[in-house]
Amino acid sequence: MTTLAARYAAVRAHTEALAAPLSEADCQPQSMPEASPVKWHLAHTTWFFETFVLEPHEAGFRLHHPAYRVLFNSYYNAVGDKHPRPQRGLVTRPGLAEVRHYRRAVDERIAALLARAEGDAALAAALAPLLTLGLQHEQQHQELILTDLLHLLSLNPLEPAYREGPLPAAEAVPAGWIAHAGGLVEIGHEPAPGGFAFDNEGPRHRVFLRPFEIGARLVTHAEWAAFIADGGYQEPRWWLSAGWDWVGAQGVQAPLYWRREAAGPGPGALSAFSAFTLHGRQPLQPDAPVRHLSLYEADAYARWAGARLPTEAEWEHAAAALPQAFGHAWQWTASPYTAYPGYRPWAGTVGEYNGKFMLDQTVLRGSSDATPAGHARPSYRNFFPAGTRWQFAGLRLARDL
Amino acid sequence: MTTLAARYAAVRAHTEALAAPLSEADCQPQSMPEASPVKWHLAHTTWFFETFVLEPHEAGFRLHHPAYRVLFNSYYNAVGDKHPRPQRGLVTRPGLAEVRHYRRAVDERIAALLARAEGDAALAAALAPLLTLGLQHEQQHQELILTDLLHLLSLNPLEPAYREGPLPAAEAVPAGWIAHAGGLVEIGHEPAPGGFAFDNEGPRHRVFLRPFEIGARLVTHAEWAAFIADGGYQEPRWWLSAGWDWVGAQGVQAPLYWRREAAGPGPGALSAFSAFTLHGRQPLQPDAPVRHLSLYEADAYARWAGARLPTEAEWEHAAAALPQAFGHAWQWTASPYTAYPGYRPWAGTVGEYNGKFMLDQTVLRGSSDATPAGHARPSYRNFFPAGTRWQFAGLRLARDL
Amino acid sequence: MTTLAARYAAVRAHTEALAAPLSEADCQPQSMPEASPVKWHLAHTTWFFETFVLEPHEAGFRLHHPAYRVLFNSYYNAVGDKHPRPQRGLVTRPGLAEVRHYRRAVDERIAALLARAEGDAALAAALAPLLTLGLQHEQQHQELILTDLLHLLSLNPLEPAYREGPLPAAEAVPAGWIAHAGGLVEIGHEPAPGGFAFDNEGPRHRVFLRPFEIGARLVTHAEWAAFIADGGYQEPRWWLSAGWDWVGAQGVQAPLYWRREAAGPGPGALSAFSAFTLHGRQPLQPDAPVRHLSLYEADAYARWAGARLPTEAEWEHAAAALPQAFGHAWQWTASPYTAYPGYRPWAGTVGEYNGKFMLDQTVLRGSSDATPAGHARPSYRNFFPAGTRWQFAGLRLARDL
Amino acid sequence: MTTLAARYAAVRAHTEALAAPLSEADCQPQSMPEASPVKWHLAHTTWFFETFVLEPHEAGFRLHHPAYRVLFNSYYNAVGDKHPRPQRGLVTRPGLAEVRHYRRAVDERIAALLARAEGDAALAAALAPLLTLGLQHEQQHQELILTDLLHLLSLNPLEPAYREGPLPAAEAVPAGWIAHAGGLVEIGHEPAPGGFAFDNEGPRHRVFLRPFEIGARLVTHAEWAAFIADGGYQEPRWWLSAGWDWVGAQGVQAPLYWRREAAGPGPGALSAFSAFTLHGRQPLQPDAPVRHLSLYEADAYARWAGARLPTEAEWEHAAAALPQAFGHAWQWTASPYTAYPGYRPWAGTVGEYNGKFMLDQTVLRGSSDATPAGHARPSYRNFFPAGTRWQFAGLRLARDL
Repeated sequence: MTTLAARYAAVRAHTEALAAPLSEADCQPQSMPEASPVKWHLAHTTWFFETFVLEPHEAGFRLHHPAYRVLFNSYYNAVGDKHPRPQRGLVTRPGLAEVRHYRRAVDERIAALLARAEGDAALAAALAPLLTLGLQHEQQHQELILTDLLHLLSLNPLEPAYREGPLPAAEAVPAGWIAHAGGLVEIGHEPAPGGFAFDNEGPRHRVFLRPFEIGARLVTHAEWAAFIADGGYQEPRWWLSAGWDWVGAQGVQAPLYWRREAAGPGPGALSAFSAFTLHGRQPLQPDAPVRHLSLYEADAYARWAGARLPTEAEWEHAAAALPQAFGHAWQWTASPYTAYPGYRPWAGTVGEYNGKFMLDQTVLRGSSDATPAGHARPSYRNFFPAGTRWQFAGLRLARDL
Repeated sequence: MTTLAARYAAVRAHTEALAAPLSEADCQPQSMPEASPVKWHLAHTTWFFETFVLEPHEAGFRLHHPAYRVLFNSYYNAVGDKHPRPQRGLVTRPGLAEVRHYRRAVDERIAALLARAEGDAALAAALAPLLTLGLQHEQQHQELILTDLLHLLSLNPLEPAYREGPLPAAEAVPAGWIAHAGGLVEIGHEPAPGGFAFDNEGPRHRVFLRPFEIGARLVTHAEWAAFIADGGYQEPRWWLSAGWDWVGAQGVQAPLYWRREAAGPGPGALSAFSAFTLHGRQPLQPDAPVRHLSLYEADAYARWAGARLPTEAEWEHAAAALPQAFGHAWQWTASPYTAYPGYRPWAGTVGEYNGKFMLDQTVLRGSSDATPAGHARPSYRNFFPAGTRWQFAGLRLARDL
Repeated sequence: MTTLAARYAAVRAHTEALAAPLSEADCQPQSMPEASPVKWHLAHTTWFFETFVLEPHEAGFRLHHPAYRVLFNSYYNAVGDKHPRPQRGLVTRPGLAEVRHYRRAVDERIAALLARAEGDAALAAALAPLLTLGLQHEQQHQELILTDLLHLLSLNPLEPAYREGPLPAAEAVPAGWIAHAGGLVEIGHEPAPGGFAFDNEGPRHRVFLRPFEIGARLVTHAEWAAFIADGGYQEPRWWLSAGWDWVGAQGVQAPLYWRREAAGPGPGALSAFSAFTLHGRQPLQPDAPVRHLSLYEADAYARWAGARLPTEAEWEHAAAALPQAFGHAWQWTASPYTAYPGYRPWAGTVGEYNGKFMLDQTVLRGSSDATPAGHARPSYRNFFPAGTRWQFAGLRLARDL
Repeated sequence: MTTLAARYAAVRAHTEALAAPLSEADCQPQSMPEASPVKWHLAHTTWFFETFVLEPHEAGFRLHHPAYRVLFNSYYNAVGDKHPRPQRGLVTRPGLAEVRHYRRAVDERIAALLARAEGDAALAAALAPLLTLGLQHEQQHQELILTDLLHLLSLNPLEPAYREGPLPAAEAVPAGWIAHAGGLVEIGHEPAPGGFAFDNEGPRHRVFLRPFEIGARLVTHAEWAAFIADGGYQEPRWWLSAGWDWVGAQGVQAPLYWRREAAGPGPGALSAFSAFTLHGRQPLQPDAPVRHLSLYEADAYARWAGARLPTEAEWEHAAAALPQAFGHAWQWTASPYTAYPGYRPWAGTVGEYNGKFMLDQTVLRGSSDATPAGHARPSYRNFFPAGTRWQFAGLRLARDL
């Protein structure tokens, strides 16, 4: 338990650190229904521990505040009512200080529970998986805090920066292809002592793959500029039907957050654009992986490049030897998000965590530089609707052999 | 100028006082596109003085911040670009402290300008009308601060109060009718030294009125409960066609902010409801004027009561002897908001203040208890679209004689 | 009664004649929710006689078809349910032949009733106003048949013509102004034996007018081209706020049905455009009155021209000596559509005819060349929402003196 | 070629026969953007032959009508512009007779081309696959004609019937499960001389299946009534998240076209409902397969029943021995519609046929009683968005072993 207590403290402190540079005003608004206020992230992750750890295991459990049960429930029907999602940014009370107080109060109660579990093996055994889940959950929200904050700040004409200074320089990674023979392979999480995976990462199962090769690095800013220069956003044959409609309806001409420079050169040159980032507006580094793409764009680019997106099975099979697999950008795959053969959601209320979203979303693999340390693994399945752009999502290519 | 400087200081201080009990979080969100954040109200009223007073008259004028010119422009096309109205709540920077600094900086520059005008009669003559307009403008936003704040807090399930303690007790006013003979009467603002009116209040002009009588008080909560009890919201014949569609589409069954009591009696009894107010959730006082009505509701009630709404000419003609004319609730009239005969908008950019909105809105007369002292007058024309409910708007009846 | 029977026959036959050139396919679709299928117009006008004349006065009345009571009810809540308006074009059965049979069957029953009334003075007295109303109602729908048909055909890329041959040549009318002294004048319908007016045209009442002058003809195509050439659609200061939003949201750059000629000259030249008409695509005649304008456009043009729209009282007062008052284009006024002082809707179900629409619409005066003979009069009040363009609506100017 | 000419004649005649009982009015409207008018189906299938067979192979090819190229293009960007899909029902000209003339004219030109191919082996070889594709395409539209017509007639309060007489009696099929061992199996179309499949049915490829069992018949009306009686539409735990939102937003309580009987028994009893069908309103036969379900409903039912939907690989592997595989109802699967490994769209313009739709749709397998004879096969992949209900779609269950 001591290790778990330490991990708990570290993960919770990292969340606080992410929010530390922000004002109460920064933490309040919801920039679109799909995003959430930072304050809400701070509260909801705490609600998760209160609801799924304290309530079933704390003697004499009482709600920290009766209204929080509803206010900070994201989507668990079995827990009861939920505050309407698009109105999260309108809840000004509790204020940020009260939400921080809520965090500390739950932290103290968790600490007390963990102390009790030192002498209670059954309790310790029951707490471990729930606390681990709660921490993995909080790590997901750590990335969302940055994702949602970037979206919010991007709508401010003052182009404010969350972090001072220039972006770190991107390292150039050699292009190329990594070949795989395919055949009957296994993918999915293999349970092991001390290991963790979400329910949607298993069961481990066999998949038959044809021979394929996969890109040795992510697609870069410079490559994306070539796609633009070649009229990629104007040519329907590269696009899925829904993607072409989306391009037309939204008037998309570049990745989200790319901004045309007033005195830039021709439309396709990289220097014609800069990008809004967590460091404010910054030049586009040619070798950096392109990000903030929809699946529509990633898929169109792959077709333009004479390639395709990898399936998630190909990606996972190749992951061990894949440069830039983790820590740069989530990578759109060709795979719809569905249940693995034999999939069963977790028992109980947390069974709503993943399974009920397995429709009309597409899997992303890898992780981004906004993903917290220790949260990435080869079997991890991220997923978003095809038109999603505000995530740190890019692509790598694949081809049949 | 001394008097004007004192008035300036007083009005500006009153705005600050209204916002004083609020946190930075409270001042940030925009609860709907028609409403604005408190922080935006604080900044926009300052922008008004900077743009329309300082810029033309201050030697060596410089913008306090270049981005504010766009950010806090409400709707003046002639001033240039405007930040998109539905995104006002997403501007977290400048923060509340910076906006307060903006207020103080402009206040100091206005003070310096006024000091200079002490010895410059031409300047003083030029400043007086613009400053007066700016203060009247700020007073309008003082009421909107409360109106918009009430709407925001009403969406919080914790039902927070802006003000502590119970509502003041409403005084019972005798019902009855006040008769007028009509004929050719004059309405509209008559310019006088030291007087002020918005351009839409003039010119003073002749209107022919038939004999009529007008209600001696506003319609009360108790009377509204009788309308509900009689099925008023279920019977199409009381409603304008657009109103009946609106009732159906919105599922309206009571004034905005009325909330059904869990264990209340029958649907029409006043005690079946309470109301969300600036004092939090409160009982409905039978004698208090009903408020937060749309024009649709006011008009339907009048028809149900065998009466009609007064025209704005009737209201203004009768105003001198009208109980509850001011300080309780804005009163919907039967008059569309149009130009008076001979109307000319103010010259220059401030000409956009009123004239361009003269379509498909309805005039309200009087004032509410949220209207700041000194801002009400018989010729004042407030106006809103027919479906507006978040204003402090009620009604009084009228009838032909 | 003989005269009335003859009028009935003539009006009903005119409706048939309007539909005669159309196929069953032409009579079926509803091009937008605001328009109706020709077949629906044929049926609804018949429903009006069945519901308001036959039902109360025919011995042993039986519905022609039980479902028609609902199917062809436009908006009379007191008659009962209504088929959803946007689904009128989906009713393929009854077919056109059945609807024509419905017309004939009701015509025969009306004829029989009129024959009975020859010897029954009380019946004759009761029938006359209802039949007259039904015929006026049918005449309104005669114009709507052409209006709605033009809109439908305009959406067909084959640009089909309803009528063969070129448009009749427009006569040039001299420009100029007609001055009026104003004062206390009377407007509104004055009841007279044998006369008819809708309830909204009365009561006759006194209005005080300032001196004004009114345009001696309608604004022409050539004048409108000058407005375009001067950037009228790009300059916000000419527009009402709602109008400017509308121009931007709809991308409006010319009157409805104006089409840019492939090889046309500069954007403002009249020959850069042609127009889709009931005669198919046709050149724009410089002297012809411009039509298919929204109120927003009419109002913006007037401001650009240094003038304004006339009020409906000015128009009616001036009508007797007004060139092009009738038969060319409905003329937008500056007057919102409201009740005249002392207005009372008709008693009974037909009271829903006009009164419940008196909100957020604007009055048009005069008549168009699609208005049937005998349906125009100086007190007539047409009305539509400000964004309406598919009506035969133009404008004339007015100015204060 | 003689056989092909005969098949061409037979398929084209079947389309005509389907439309034969319909009036021109019936063939005109578009009941929703996803559906098309019967007249449009008649024309578009002809356009397909004109564009993809005649144009590349007919000497001296000329368009039947220049405007039809655009008017009847469904979604082929490479062919050029398309008439806006939601406006298909507004094209009243060409009329039905002209569209029939278009059909006959193209039929004659195809016949002449086929006659020429009798002596031209290269031409014959080139024509065969295109004509076959055109006929398969027309067969798809034959089912859509009935599907879209049923939707249109269902919106008519007169509940008109397309076919006279009662529905044929449904045969009771025994319930039960058919077990399969799984393992590495092959699915997908295996090309063979004279065979046809759409590009999306191949290539044939290996898939690893776990042991499973599949329902021995389709889910019936009686079973669906039990789901309703058990509160299936009110219990979120059976539903995908998007499905639960859909149920709430649409107020869904039963399959599309089920209508509550006025004097019916309790909400879940089968006799509480009847159904609107191509035979008009009809009783629900207990043993008949339930149809007109969304994927959301099919998936929720399967979860309620302690089962799941089969994957398309399972379905196809089991198809040879599957009762009610074809001819009753399309069967929703658990499989998103994606490219098979190694999939390549057809070369040329017809490459837009299938591939660009491979996102966010779900595969249905089998066929319905509206599918024309000869159009069903085990590898056939139908696909629709999850909320689609107007197709003849039901379900069968599956379970892991």
